[in-house]
Amino acid sequence: MRQVSIVGIGQLPVQKAHSQSLRQLGATAVRLALADAGVTKLDALYSANMLADELQGQKHLAALIADEAGLAGVEALEVGAATAAGAAALRMGILAVAGGTADVVGVVGVEKMSGGAATPILAKALDAEQEVPGGATLLSQNARLMQLYLDRYRPPAEALAHFSVNAHANAAGNPYALFRDRHVTVQDVLASRLVSPPIRLLDSSPICDGAAAVVLAATELAGRLTRHPVHILASSAATDRFRLADRPDPLALAAAGRSVAAAFAQAGLSPADVDLFEAHDAFTIMACLSLEAAGFVPPGQGWRLAVAGEIGLPGRIPLSTMGGLKARGHPIGATALYQVGEIVLQLTGRAGPCQVPNARLALMQSVGGAATTVITHIFGA
Amino acid sequence: MRQVSIVGIGQLPVQKAHSQSLRQLGATAVRLALADAGVTKLDALYSANMLADELQGQKHLAALIADEAGLAGVEALEVGAATAAGAAALRMGILAVAGGTADVVGVVGVEKMSGGAATPILAKALDAEQEVPGGATLLSQNARLMQLYLDRYRPPAEALAHFSVNAHANAAGNPYALFRDRHVTVQDVLASRLVSPPIRLLDSSPICDGAAAVVLAATELAGRLTRHPVHILASSAATDRFRLADRPDPLALAAAGRSVAAAFAQAGLSPADVDLFEAHDAFTIMACLSLEAAGFVPPGQGWRLAVAGEIGLPGRIPLSTMGGLKARGHPIGATALYQVGEIVLQLTGRAGPCQVPNARLALMQSVGGAATTVITHIFGA
Repeated sequence: MRQVSIVGIGQLPVQKAHSQSLRQLGATAVRLALADAGVTKLDALYSANMLADELQGQKHLAALIADEAGLAGVEALEVGAATAAGAAALRMGILAVAGGTADVVGVVGVEKMSGGAATPILAKALDAEQEVPGGATLLSQNARLMQLYLDRYRPPAEALAHFSVNAHANAAGNPYALFRDRHVTVQDVLASRLVSPPIRLLDSSPICDGAAAVVLAATELAGRLTRHPVHILASSAATDRFRLADRPDPLALAAAGRSVAAAFAQAGLSPADVDLFEAHDAFTIMACLSLEAAGFVPPGQGWRLAVAGEIGLPGRIPLSTMGGLKARGHPIGATALYQVGEIVLQLTGRAGPCQVPNARLALMQSVGGAATTVITHIFGA
Repeated sequence: MRQVSIVGIGQLPVQKAHSQSLRQLGATAVRLALADAGVTKLDALYSANMLADELQGQKHLAALIADEAGLAGVEALEVGAATAAGAAALRMGILAVAGGTADVVGVVGVEKMSGGAATPILAKALDAEQEVPGGATLLSQNARLMQLYLDRYRPPAEALAHFSVNAHANAAGNPYALFRDRHVTVQDVLASRLVSPPIRLLDSSPICDGAAAVVLAATELAGRLTRHPVHILASSAATDRFRLADRPDPLALAAAGRSVAAAFAQAGLSPADVDLFEAHDAFTIMACLSLEAAGFVPPGQGWRLAVAGEIGLPGRIPLSTMGGLKARGHPIGATALYQVGEIVLQLTGRAGPCQVPNARLALMQSVGGAATTVITHIFGA
């Protein structure tokens, strides 16, 4: 199995509603990544998206983006895992390069949530027969997790708000973030609207448009393509029981535990080696649970890292270093590719005001549905 | 890169409307394939489906089927390429095993088209901005190809009907086929309703429900798992310009040409080596064009093979040997997995009345949209 590196990234600013069409967003991100890698061709293009079939009436997106980007002819397939689609597509790109089928592969994520009502379509990540008919949405399931957490561990009322405050503070330094100029305090979070108790508006990532892409290459070729290769040290996907109600302990995030344990084993590393963690902070509770499931702290203690400032840029485990899903934005299918782009900037010392000092190793996680699917990647400079 | 083999298959009878739910169909196919392979665990499960997000309100299908099949915990991702989804998922399974990431992988395809109006959702494989607003559907685009073919090459009026007659004749011997007892003659095809001129009802594959699965393993392990391993000699995906209108010659099926040429190169084989061809005969014109694009005959001559009986079981290039999309049925996401199952039966001498004598090598093709995406696999016993 060959080692795989990232040799190019492309990001578009996340916006509430982009003027570009879905295909233009995707193709622009691909072109930016190709230019960054200094290549004009790909052996394959894998795409991630969750909502376009309903919001834009468009399936078959990989081939469409390939054509729009001037790459017609190339292998082009779609990969998904609900809200973790971007990481699933990244994983397929890694498999193609690692196995030797392809030398240079593009992975693109795109989402145009401004096209219509996203929430009911997002809920299709849940069980359409046994959860959705009762009113379940991704928001309500995360609210259940948060209430369970508050009841079991009794953290201070403002504890989880610190995850949002940190994300917003970091987004200020990221030119691609949706919320670049919105200073948020703990008081702001606690005063924001209860959207699904106990989740407040500022506990939640926003509905938005975005596209991001990366170019992967065999590590043996990476040095010829870029001065800044970032190496993929691990890639692992796992699932949990599909429904929250079927899990012995929903707060354990069993899929995250499995996925991260497998990733650390692949890389021969442990949580102590991680310099920054791009978690799937779609909701503050998910950031907190992810820290615990990844082994940075024992169960029930994730919030303590946030309250103590240990998740800030100079902290013990910097989180959402360029805004995270909360403040960079969470254009679903594109999100993981934004995470990768940010990690590449961090590990190559190009993260500007968001730079984590001496960042050498990054952990990234993507969550599908209510943590039914979790995909973990580890990157090293 | 490791060699990959098929060590288990599972098929459910294709029906107009199955009583089992989507997840039950998928999980049953997985269980059958696991039992056939004699394994109880998988390293990953990849799923294919095209319509469930709208017809059943369900996304995140790989994880759902994994749970329903008692495999919760396993890596489970969705792979797609419009109507070629099944072959795309198969390809990801091959990449995972070939690269050494996984030893034993399941691939499942499921579709429950009886859930609602499939045609407008299938049309989302076309360009939602520039084709669909003008009324284009997969049916109408294939009708354009057929009219173009009839105008350019002027075959006899009944020429293409022979593809349908052959498919129906072969389906009679396949216990999983939708049309097991419908004897169809050339006259029947020509007398059937014009659904989109010049395409008639009996030129077209049916709307139906089905699920099929396969288990893949590294060839070095395959001998321990089954007495009947079938080896994957090539896997290749390619695209064309997305829109028919942008192609210099739409009848050339450039994606098919690219994909099949790459596959033959991978396997070190040529069309002369092929004992049977499971083509994507969603419409008779597509069977004809696929024979030409694969190099079995020059452009404009595909129909001659059908008229001469060379596509029958004892013919030069047996086609749709167990009914094909036309008569076994075309439950979209499941179709390619049915094709694989049938090829395994053929290459291991277990195809019963459908058996192609001395079948050692099989070509399989899957078409996404109006031949925008074509995925080719080659199998050997």
